[in-house]
Amino acid sequence: MIQEITTIRQDTAAEKTRRATTDLSRFSAGDYVAGPKWKVLIWYFINYYIMNSAFPWPYGLKSRLLRLFGAKVGRGLVIKAKVRIKNPWRLSIGDHCWIGEEVWIDNLEDVTIGDHVCISQGALLLTGNHDYTLPDFPYRLGKITLEDGVWIGARSVVCPGVTCGSHAILTVNSTATKHLEAWRIYGGNPAAFVRERVMKI
Amino acid sequence: MIQEITTIRQDTAAEKTRRATTDLSRFSAGDYVAGPKWKVLIWYFINYYIMNSAFPWPYGLKSRLLRLFGAKVGRGLVIKAKVRIKNPWRLSIGDHCWIGEEVWIDNLEDVTIGDHVCISQGALLLTGNHDYTLPDFPYRLGKITLEDGVWIGARSVVCPGVTCGSHAILTVNSTATKHLEAWRIYGGNPAAFVRERVMKI
Amino acid sequence: MIQEITTIRQDTAAEKTRRATTDLSRFSAGDYVAGPKWKVLIWYFINYYIMNSAFPWPYGLKSRLLRLFGAKVGRGLVIKAKVRIKNPWRLSIGDHCWIGEEVWIDNLEDVTIGDHVCISQGALLLTGNHDYTLPDFPYRLGKITLEDGVWIGARSVVCPGVTCGSHAILTVNSTATKHLEAWRIYGGNPAAFVRERVMKI
Repeated sequence: MIQEITTIRQDTAAEKTRRATTDLSRFSAGDYVAGPKWKVLIWYFINYYIMNSAFPWPYGLKSRLLRLFGAKVGRGLVIKAKVRIKNPWRLSIGDHCWIGEEVWIDNLEDVTIGDHVCISQGALLLTGNHDYTLPDFPYRLGKITLEDGVWIGARSVVCPGVTCGSHAILTVNSTATKHLEAWRIYGGNPAAFVRERVMKI
Repeated sequence: MIQEITTIRQDTAAEKTRRATTDLSRFSAGDYVAGPKWKVLIWYFINYYIMNSAFPWPYGLKSRLLRLFGAKVGRGLVIKAKVRIKNPWRLSIGDHCWIGEEVWIDNLEDVTIGDHVCISQGALLLTGNHDYTLPDFPYRLGKITLEDGVWIGARSVVCPGVTCGSHAILTVNSTATKHLEAWRIYGGNPAAFVRERVMKI
Repeated sequence: MIQEITTIRQDTAAEKTRRATTDLSRFSAGDYVAGPKWKVLIWYFINYYIMNSAFPWPYGLKSRLLRLFGAKVGRGLVIKAKVRIKNPWRLSIGDHCWIGEEVWIDNLEDVTIGDHVCISQGALLLTGNHDYTLPDFPYRLGKITLEDGVWIGARSVVCPGVTCGSHAILTVNSTATKHLEAWRIYGGNPAAFVRERVMKI
């Protein structure tokens, strides 16, 4: 008898959770605003037709454009071709950083990058997520912080809300879903601890 | 003695399997035809110079172009910039779906997408494979089906022949090599079961 | 007492290793030269505006351009649109190879490709690395060799210094960090042995 009742309860619970299905037509960004409309619009074209173009625009020009649209950019930024940056007014970059070819900074939320950070070719910083437990699939955004000396490997992905501690390394094609501790190397999907980063000198 | 004979047999078998090597010059698509030549040619340019361009063409225009070339496209399709779709006449999309930036639907074979499906930025739907056990490397294609409410994470890959059951989720940068069961979350390469997807309401 | 002394020693060592931090402003390519400046400059534009363009330039034209800039290219090369090749004078390709759409051969160092090799769409051959144990982050480059009959799967990455033995296969979205043995299939990140590649005939 007890067995039976339990089974009925589970079915009812399952039934209830299954009743709610995703309905993307009900999605709204809520009170989220990327930025002033004119800024978003103008930046769209600068982003795709200058930053993301194959033409080797000087790093200095690209740094100035980023600053003009609200980014904090330190000295000596190396920023290759085919880079995408969603919202420069949500970006802060320290001194002597490298942003490789085809890096994609998809910063719906703030991305804060320290000094001497290397983001290798094809890496993706992902600040946007959705709450998949709700039918209207609302945004679940998260800031990303890369502290001094961090190295994000080629084709790697940093997920929303992740902080990479000072001098942490994410290996090639890996996916950081959680915080990376300082001076440690992580790899895989989801990225797991591989070994300590020890300097020779 | 038996030992010796066995060894000889294995060597012979190994010798035989090793004799056949890949010869890509002998590849032919067999009786596979993507579509009428004029359609393939015209779509090539629409695909790369409109669908895949960075310019923010209206979603409605892109939906109409897809329908004009034989795709079934439901209401309310959100389809961002830089998307690639190989053969629209092999594509069916339900209502209120989202196709993120730089999604690549490489549909040599049919791709069928239900309602309220989200394919996030950079994801790849891969219908083409090769039989690597034959020297002429023939096509081994497989249809892909994404049922209602499925979410394919950013930079993920769905392999040929895979069906993602209703409301299944493939996490960021993962690779679905086998069917994903409904209401389950999968991640990694190859993608493995992570947890159930339970709705809050 | 001994415990205490040991602790002090460890702290001092830790202190010392932590003292050296990454300083990208001190990076120099050392004695590394990609090639003659005029060659690098002209190839830059051919690479991005012809090889990497969406336009379906004939395979023969692209093969001739590669040869003109020093690549060894065998007969029957199939080379799709949107391919990137860093330094053609550091590239050798055998007969009847396929280079898929959006393949990126980032060959700061030599890349040697045998006969009948298939590099599928979106794959990345990565020859550049950095010594992260030194503050000035010097180059640590490594040649890549793909022997006859190798198949590099879609969206996969081959890391610096890796040799893929004859007829080895790297599966979709995987990352080869070490040598792949001949006639074996590898997958995951880092790529691990999956099974033998056995030919049907």
